[in-house]
Amino acid sequence: MVKLKLYYDFLSQPSRTLYLFMKKTEIPFEPIKINLRKSEHLNKEIESLNIFKKVPFIDDKGFVIMESVAILRYLCRTYNVADHWYPKDYQKQARIDEYLEWQHNNTRAHCTEYFRNKALQPLKTGQPANEQRVELLENKMIENLNLLENIWLKDKPFLCGEEISISDLVGACELEQPKIAGFDPFVNRPNLIKWIARVKTIFSPFYEEAHKVIEQTAEEYKQFIRKQN
Amino acid sequence: MVKLKLYYDFLSQPSRTLYLFMKKTEIPFEPIKINLRKSEHLNKEIESLNIFKKVPFIDDKGFVIMESVAILRYLCRTYNVADHWYPKDYQKQARIDEYLEWQHNNTRAHCTEYFRNKALQPLKTGQPANEQRVELLENKMIENLNLLENIWLKDKPFLCGEEISISDLVGACELEQPKIAGFDPFVNRPNLIKWIARVKTIFSPFYEEAHKVIEQTAEEYKQFIRKQN
Repeated sequence: MVKLKLYYDFLSQPSRTLYLFMKKTEIPFEPIKINLRKSEHLNKEIESLNIFKKVPFIDDKGFVIMESVAILRYLCRTYNVADHWYPKDYQKQARIDEYLEWQHNNTRAHCTEYFRNKALQPLKTGQPANEQRVELLENKMIENLNLLENIWLKDKPFLCGEEISISDLVGACELEQPKIAGFDPFVNRPNLIKWIARVKTIFSPFYEEAHKVIEQTAEEYKQFIRKQN
Repeated sequence: MVKLKLYYDFLSQPSRTLYLFMKKTEIPFEPIKINLRKSEHLNKEIESLNIFKKVPFIDDKGFVIMESVAILRYLCRTYNVADHWYPKDYQKQARIDEYLEWQHNNTRAHCTEYFRNKALQPLKTGQPANEQRVELLENKMIENLNLLENIWLKDKPFLCGEEISISDLVGACELEQPKIAGFDPFVNRPNLIKWIARVKTIFSPFYEEAHKVIEQTAEEYKQFIRKQN
């Protein structure tokens, strides 16, 4: 039987999100690893499926769709997963959508750009990072982490309410990313610490499996910095 | 009867999106203007409703929700508008979600940042823009406009298919924004030209009403530049 195919690389936080979601909800899928650092996403075969040449994407029996948040919504609608992931109740769904829209230009934009500018570009090019740019991005990232700590997680166990939803998974995978560049978003943020522990427990052992790459790449980056100095 | 309230400023593209959508679909609402340039969104009264102090947001009989794209989805679910705006068909809906997720870190991020850096900040502070930064943002914006022209609108009349959807409205209001800074995204892009004409026809006369501010602010910016030189 042809299964849903997931094209992914664990180095990409939306890839980890989709992998973890499908593992946890037992949606049957075939994982197809695309090595981003070897630029495999630029291959002709990938382009013929997804003209934007972006990972992750899925191929659900010929229906190809990109953008991880759009894919999560699609999976919740078509695979009959537990309601709490993306509730049918209009108001609960709107709260989750609110977070999922908010995160793009907040945690997503700044954690990703920080990681890219501070670690990924230097690892790729061998050139040191632009310190001024990194400082600016770090400050913006910190602003957003404080919004998570003081607003989103102020008075509830999960980002959008009493139960875990797809928003928590998107948030968690995002916040693991800056660790590669030596920045731990959880330090001195007690609400974030309690929340990430809840998320990890729910997604264990898949969470640890998908995030091994973070520790490995963080170690590689540390050695790179040591050599530079 | 208490109506849905829309807190908005036409200077903000997501505000125009929501206003136009509710006008066109005849959702009854009370528009409440919040002057962003006078920082009215930072007032205590607004903060007590929306702790993020962002405009637009809605108050639907006590249910307050921010993030325009989340609001559009909520309105489509609760107000029984025509199906083509956000189809119930899983695959069609996924195509629209795909665009709505994509646009955040593409057209949205770059058109907004270009407009902010080139026009809004100088108008606010009286200081000239950082030319290097503006050039970088303009190039990224152009890359994304070319993706709209050559991929999204390559072979269909609307962004996500044969019929208009909420994605077209989000896209259109976004692309009007850089005009304030003297940049017309439609020049030499025939697919975009035909598409925007279709969108304008559908939303006329509300489209013209909500976009008057673009011409006015563009004129104000022109005069500011003249004085600087």
